[in-house]
Amino acid sequence: MKTQTILITGGIVVNDSGMGYADLLIENEKVKAQALPGTFKDLHVDVSIDATDKFVLPGLIDPHVHFNSPFMGSKTIHDYDNGTIAAAFGGITTIIDFSTQPKGGSLLENLNQKEEEAHGKAYIDWSMHGIILDTDPKALAEIPQLIDKGVPTYKCFTTYRHADRMTDDQGMLRILETTARYGGMLMVHCEDDAIIEYHLNQELAAKHYDSIYHARSRPASAENEAIKRVIALMRECTAPVYIVHTSTAESVDIIEEARQAGLPIHSETCTHYLALTEEALKLENGYYFICSPPLRTQRDIDYLWRAAADGRIEVVSSDDAGMPSQERIKLGKGRFDKITNGMPGIEPRLSIMFTEGYGKGKISLPRLVALTSTNPAKLFGMYPDKGNLFPGADADLVIYNPKGKWTMRASNLHMNDDFCPFEGWKINGHVETVISRGQFVIKNGELVGKPGHGKRVIRKLLDAV
Amino acid sequence: MKTQTILITGGIVVNDSGMGYADLLIENEKVKAQALPGTFKDLHVDVSIDATDKFVLPGLIDPHVHFNSPFMGSKTIHDYDNGTIAAAFGGITTIIDFSTQPKGGSLLENLNQKEEEAHGKAYIDWSMHGIILDTDPKALAEIPQLIDKGVPTYKCFTTYRHADRMTDDQGMLRILETTARYGGMLMVHCEDDAIIEYHLNQELAAKHYDSIYHARSRPASAENEAIKRVIALMRECTAPVYIVHTSTAESVDIIEEARQAGLPIHSETCTHYLALTEEALKLENGYYFICSPPLRTQRDIDYLWRAAADGRIEVVSSDDAGMPSQERIKLGKGRFDKITNGMPGIEPRLSIMFTEGYGKGKISLPRLVALTSTNPAKLFGMYPDKGNLFPGADADLVIYNPKGKWTMRASNLHMNDDFCPFEGWKINGHVETVISRGQFVIKNGELVGKPGHGKRVIRKLLDAV
Amino acid sequence: MKTQTILITGGIVVNDSGMGYADLLIENEKVKAQALPGTFKDLHVDVSIDATDKFVLPGLIDPHVHFNSPFMGSKTIHDYDNGTIAAAFGGITTIIDFSTQPKGGSLLENLNQKEEEAHGKAYIDWSMHGIILDTDPKALAEIPQLIDKGVPTYKCFTTYRHADRMTDDQGMLRILETTARYGGMLMVHCEDDAIIEYHLNQELAAKHYDSIYHARSRPASAENEAIKRVIALMRECTAPVYIVHTSTAESVDIIEEARQAGLPIHSETCTHYLALTEEALKLENGYYFICSPPLRTQRDIDYLWRAAADGRIEVVSSDDAGMPSQERIKLGKGRFDKITNGMPGIEPRLSIMFTEGYGKGKISLPRLVALTSTNPAKLFGMYPDKGNLFPGADADLVIYNPKGKWTMRASNLHMNDDFCPFEGWKINGHVETVISRGQFVIKNGELVGKPGHGKRVIRKLLDAV
Amino acid sequence: MKTQTILITGGIVVNDSGMGYADLLIENEKVKAQALPGTFKDLHVDVSIDATDKFVLPGLIDPHVHFNSPFMGSKTIHDYDNGTIAAAFGGITTIIDFSTQPKGGSLLENLNQKEEEAHGKAYIDWSMHGIILDTDPKALAEIPQLIDKGVPTYKCFTTYRHADRMTDDQGMLRILETTARYGGMLMVHCEDDAIIEYHLNQELAAKHYDSIYHARSRPASAENEAIKRVIALMRECTAPVYIVHTSTAESVDIIEEARQAGLPIHSETCTHYLALTEEALKLENGYYFICSPPLRTQRDIDYLWRAAADGRIEVVSSDDAGMPSQERIKLGKGRFDKITNGMPGIEPRLSIMFTEGYGKGKISLPRLVALTSTNPAKLFGMYPDKGNLFPGADADLVIYNPKGKWTMRASNLHMNDDFCPFEGWKINGHVETVISRGQFVIKNGELVGKPGHGKRVIRKLLDAV
Repeated sequence: MKTQTILITGGIVVNDSGMGYADLLIENEKVKAQALPGTFKDLHVDVSIDATDKFVLPGLIDPHVHFNSPFMGSKTIHDYDNGTIAAAFGGITTIIDFSTQPKGGSLLENLNQKEEEAHGKAYIDWSMHGIILDTDPKALAEIPQLIDKGVPTYKCFTTYRHADRMTDDQGMLRILETTARYGGMLMVHCEDDAIIEYHLNQELAAKHYDSIYHARSRPASAENEAIKRVIALMRECTAPVYIVHTSTAESVDIIEEARQAGLPIHSETCTHYLALTEEALKLENGYYFICSPPLRTQRDIDYLWRAAADGRIEVVSSDDAGMPSQERIKLGKGRFDKITNGMPGIEPRLSIMFTEGYGKGKISLPRLVALTSTNPAKLFGMYPDKGNLFPGADADLVIYNPKGKWTMRASNLHMNDDFCPFEGWKINGHVETVISRGQFVIKNGELVGKPGHGKRVIRKLLDAV
Repeated sequence: MKTQTILITGGIVVNDSGMGYADLLIENEKVKAQALPGTFKDLHVDVSIDATDKFVLPGLIDPHVHFNSPFMGSKTIHDYDNGTIAAAFGGITTIIDFSTQPKGGSLLENLNQKEEEAHGKAYIDWSMHGIILDTDPKALAEIPQLIDKGVPTYKCFTTYRHADRMTDDQGMLRILETTARYGGMLMVHCEDDAIIEYHLNQELAAKHYDSIYHARSRPASAENEAIKRVIALMRECTAPVYIVHTSTAESVDIIEEARQAGLPIHSETCTHYLALTEEALKLENGYYFICSPPLRTQRDIDYLWRAAADGRIEVVSSDDAGMPSQERIKLGKGRFDKITNGMPGIEPRLSIMFTEGYGKGKISLPRLVALTSTNPAKLFGMYPDKGNLFPGADADLVIYNPKGKWTMRASNLHMNDDFCPFEGWKINGHVETVISRGQFVIKNGELVGKPGHGKRVIRKLLDAV
Repeated sequence: MKTQTILITGGIVVNDSGMGYADLLIENEKVKAQALPGTFKDLHVDVSIDATDKFVLPGLIDPHVHFNSPFMGSKTIHDYDNGTIAAAFGGITTIIDFSTQPKGGSLLENLNQKEEEAHGKAYIDWSMHGIILDTDPKALAEIPQLIDKGVPTYKCFTTYRHADRMTDDQGMLRILETTARYGGMLMVHCEDDAIIEYHLNQELAAKHYDSIYHARSRPASAENEAIKRVIALMRECTAPVYIVHTSTAESVDIIEEARQAGLPIHSETCTHYLALTEEALKLENGYYFICSPPLRTQRDIDYLWRAAADGRIEVVSSDDAGMPSQERIKLGKGRFDKITNGMPGIEPRLSIMFTEGYGKGKISLPRLVALTSTNPAKLFGMYPDKGNLFPGADADLVIYNPKGKWTMRASNLHMNDDFCPFEGWKINGHVETVISRGQFVIKNGELVGKPGHGKRVIRKLLDAV
Repeated sequence: MKTQTILITGGIVVNDSGMGYADLLIENEKVKAQALPGTFKDLHVDVSIDATDKFVLPGLIDPHVHFNSPFMGSKTIHDYDNGTIAAAFGGITTIIDFSTQPKGGSLLENLNQKEEEAHGKAYIDWSMHGIILDTDPKALAEIPQLIDKGVPTYKCFTTYRHADRMTDDQGMLRILETTARYGGMLMVHCEDDAIIEYHLNQELAAKHYDSIYHARSRPASAENEAIKRVIALMRECTAPVYIVHTSTAESVDIIEEARQAGLPIHSETCTHYLALTEEALKLENGYYFICSPPLRTQRDIDYLWRAAADGRIEVVSSDDAGMPSQERIKLGKGRFDKITNGMPGIEPRLSIMFTEGYGKGKISLPRLVALTSTNPAKLFGMYPDKGNLFPGADADLVIYNPKGKWTMRASNLHMNDDFCPFEGWKINGHVETVISRGQFVIKNGELVGKPGHGKRVIRKLLDAV
């Protein structure tokens, strides 16, 4: 299998800077050449694919998913098998999941355990971020070891104080200091805990239990203020930071101002913040749409698209974190504050970005590639192996056929969930073929990949991005 | 004594809006009339004072002093007797001290106790702010009672976490909410504890023990960030806030921006932040100059004067908080972090403001009156009784003779301290006479007042200032 | 007449810093004393007035009126006789009119001519600003002479290019340089001519002739940009500038930012910008409401009131500039761009400020006095003679009876116009008595003053305000 | 010649997004393939070049040069022959020159004439921008014709009023309106004429004639204010604008703020603003360094590099505009204001960017390519033919050998000037080979190209960039 050669002809190859008609030659898991159509017409290859007038994109990277993740007595719906299948159907060839430090315990041990869980299951490549809960010397001492093991990125939370998951300002500074010393990157979930507690208490005191009050209790100001706070700490001790799942218009300006001041700050938003408003929380099944940060307004959506288009937002991830439907109904119906936050989203991401973003003129295809593949590869230490289709890169790619329209439903997706946040949306085109390191995972819409093909990616951050 | 009439002739009466030659008639503890010179020349009065070409100012108010205040096993140097004498020699006719809630205990009880301590001692009028350490329901329930008892203003700290004096963001929001409901005003000592802890640890780890490292461990950014933080919380729950002892140039802009956005925020700086730089910490006796926030730079001084002149800073207080000299030497010589913060300053305030501010063209005399008398009276609920010399106001005044120069020394002041932060400074003019509610406290430079004349001022905030 | 003494008892005397019950003694054109009620009960006076529970304010100053001013073949409606009568009924004791340099001619000559026109007519005191049209050396050479003659303030326009009244940037810098050298203050009408020309051409090309297009053709951005432009020039050559008739919310922020950067910039708004929106231009008689800058929106009104309350706006003037009704109808009905801009407003100013501002809680009475009397006196060089009621000030005052309501109509005002912009508005209280330098102009609502009593005020700017 | 095939092996191919080892196959003037080293080892090609460990860049584009351009009685030093030779030695394969509308005349006619002048001379491809001096309807009517003829970009000046080259604000709005309608892009030379006139007069009045006063008379504020002004006009009438030769730190922020507000604004800086400070003007031959905007400070240089690195500045051009040495000496020695502005710079650009930028860690090589090739191609309507080396692009490329150091001198460059602004600078590496549409122009450092090979590029702006 290893020496398989594939020739993809007639497609429009897209990179983050431009696009054009080119044939793509693949050999030994790698891209071997990009050439004018017809260049290799006399070459013998194992498989030849006609991609005429289809888009050939670097395989997408989803740097923010939660697989097999325990939370509040339940677990997220995706494991490494079903999760990577759904990912592949979403044009994704690499995901990055999280390994969480047990409070008081060892992140490294959890990492090993996570790896065992994943063993033999994944259809595509995968990697891990850490989640740091403690900031005592013992916990911090693991950071350089994490980096050595190819996990140079780790997340902490500015909220969830009552769930014992919050890192306070003192702790954040300690992580930043360690990061500055050893060369990793800190990811931060930014929502201000005090502001949320205040509003949550106000809403509960007023007996406001409907799902919309989830959004009221976690206002935009909570997110904005937490981001400002992290930036203030970065000014004291400068180390690279990546703000996960930004959802507000203001966050764009706050982060950009810090970036222009020279701070090494990066940010992502997620598919749902680009497509759904808090109005969804008012639906009968509004509790399905509870996530944190909450869905915002159309104004935020418009602003986030513009920032995604012009580079102020560098990444769009899914933050895939569905939960079993029965538990969701049980917990969420009566009280917004009792339900586990999170939505499934790994599969719809490319469809939504293609249809809502490219299809409606909000972003170009090169920009779509930058947001979902090239930038994650660069920021998370997988470039130039991943995130591009230049000679020498891993042969991770997706052929997207832009023709035709279909209606997205939970029932015609492959996620392990009977809920889809974009139920009923009209989608332009579809993922036709997905190749991971030279192997077909999806071929003409059929799953042909094998569990265990996916390997763990050992990541190493670039000196500068 | 009560019906004593005093006529002050030939002086230049200053108010916060302007100044001009006027005679002043006093009767029954009150100002009875301001009139053109000579208007009352035929009137019989008990005492007539020739103030020709001298300035007649409303008695100064010092809204920020620490009398008889226990801290770290010691006590501040001034009690109600010696402290109010020093105040009077500084042209002050009203001070506001602090009553501190014992951790877990009752602020109201401490208030009663403080009042007993003060009984029969004070030469001038005095009042109290609260200091709130707890924010549980029991502690918060005292706030409306405090307001009813004429203590509508209370302070909390964003730092001193390890000394158990810090109010966290959750607590701050609870106080703001209570304040919004009952109509008081929250005063905040703004220095960010996490930023200080980070820098303190860095300095101590580097064995930086000299006094200058006090300033390094509490950088301007710690103050600025804490102010921004309070403003962020005010946006969630809007209630009046007064930022005490601002010391940085940036704080002016941060606060003004909030004010222009409509937030009810006020600020003071202190004499020493307008006159001394952190260079003082490098002197042999630099540990005498340790206070929090620390002394800053000449750039800050220049900016603070401009803001004091144009109204962005509303009050200049002394933050008088000297400590016994022997203890200071014992604690401060080896390690900057071991010494109790604070400096004496109640007496030099007017001299410094007059000489450095008015004398060097930085502020007008009306503005000096605004900063040190009218504005504190208005902001802290003592106007129109205090803070002006219009008919009907308390006859609290100071006659300042602008002629002559002298050299300030601890030895020629009346503070209970052998240290003066302004030792050796040349001063223009001097406090000649001080009258408190129609009684002479200082007459031609001699103390003639009586302990116990001073009464507690029951304060009530204006609806709007 | 000269030695007349007047005692006003029982009133609430208002100054720009506070207010309180006080009796006021007047002698020899001057305020002699402010005293507690009853202080002078045994004194013999020529006239005693009972002002119990009425407000006694310093006489208002209107620093922006256009009397007897030729424009586009017509003339403004008010001359020095009828104009000062209307002013007095509006509580005004001093107006400042404009003397315009004839293009190519001498401002000083026009000043003399204006003075002759005014001779013997005025019922209250008056003064002049210059209007500068040329900036060649000859014209600039008149500036120091103007200052010497008590006219230290002069206006120029950033628009009206086609009417040959515009000063371009080069000229503005020349005036600023001259002003910096000799100590005057430049007043600027700020509307960007290029932006207006662009929009005017767009509207006319679209055959948009209705009055509302007056507002469309002079958008807020034209005003804002012109103010920014003047500030940019002030940064090159710093001299005091006073922006006349600001009308936009943004102008407040733009000017305040410059002020905080240390630039000597001041600003006024006018009564109508605080009370009327551009909706008035859509009325059947909308052409009556055409003025420049145009009326704006409710958002602007709200913002301007807040800025007037907190000090960012220092003055409220009337910009009184009515035109004869017949001409207005003739010119304005067909084409918004053909009508002379301007509205009458000298008389309603105090009524509107009292009713809409103080009566609706937007400003305090001391602030009303600051905006309409104290600040104009200080900024335009008439303090401490005008703008206050302290001993020694000119006995210019108005007694305002706050009781009762009436309906404002052109027919019950004293302006020389059958149009009133506030027709039908309900007003709280009324001007009862007006005294100018110790002489009654209005007594219990009746005109008792004499033409020629009013004198020209020779102004001299304060060193610093 | 046309079917010549070239294989470049072993090089590091750089694009604006990344770089990697790849062989490059060229055929028929176009890039045919990028492939892993060795891919085409068995293919027969006409020429094979070993580029092992050398950088292979897309041919540089210099979008801002002045060839054969009359100015103040003289002419710039470069014509289409010597200028394009110097360009090629600077790694450039496309230049864009300017065709200037004669005042009152036709830009289209001048364009034809320029084209004739260029005929048969150029060694590399070339194109034209327009320069618009008039904004009357006749002149504006040429804009759509220019766009049709492949000249969709045209410049105007905010200064040089006295040389009759300035476009005033009214005119600028008219051009913007026309541009918005027909789809071109306006380039603006931003320096405020009024501010310059003011300072120029001040300096001349003070008899300040030395070259350094050139910088004093055209301060950073003049440039910044002119840019703000253009942005203000863009807000009134939005059309794409490209600010040429920005030189100040502040300009970066001003432009970025407008961009973030959604305005279609772009900017370039020039080599000399990234490398030289105004100190050069104090040299004995300082008059050689007179250009407009003038050289600035080290702080500006540092800020511009950062902005060039992070994308806020999109292009680095040369603004090549040398003048004959004798005239320069004659005009410039006595009086800074008499000399024609401009410096030669077309050849050193790549050397300086490589040595000072990449060599000192300020920019990556992909970013160097973006700034000097990809972005100019995209912004000026030549992408994807130019600005990249993907299959299908014009085979315009430069092989840069990074090894070795040499000293830049006018005498070892190929520009038609005995002055080089970077005389004596140490340079890393050198341009080894330059290929223009598949033809060698420079081969191993030797000129082998032919005059007349270069063709005029008909440009067409992208719908969106």
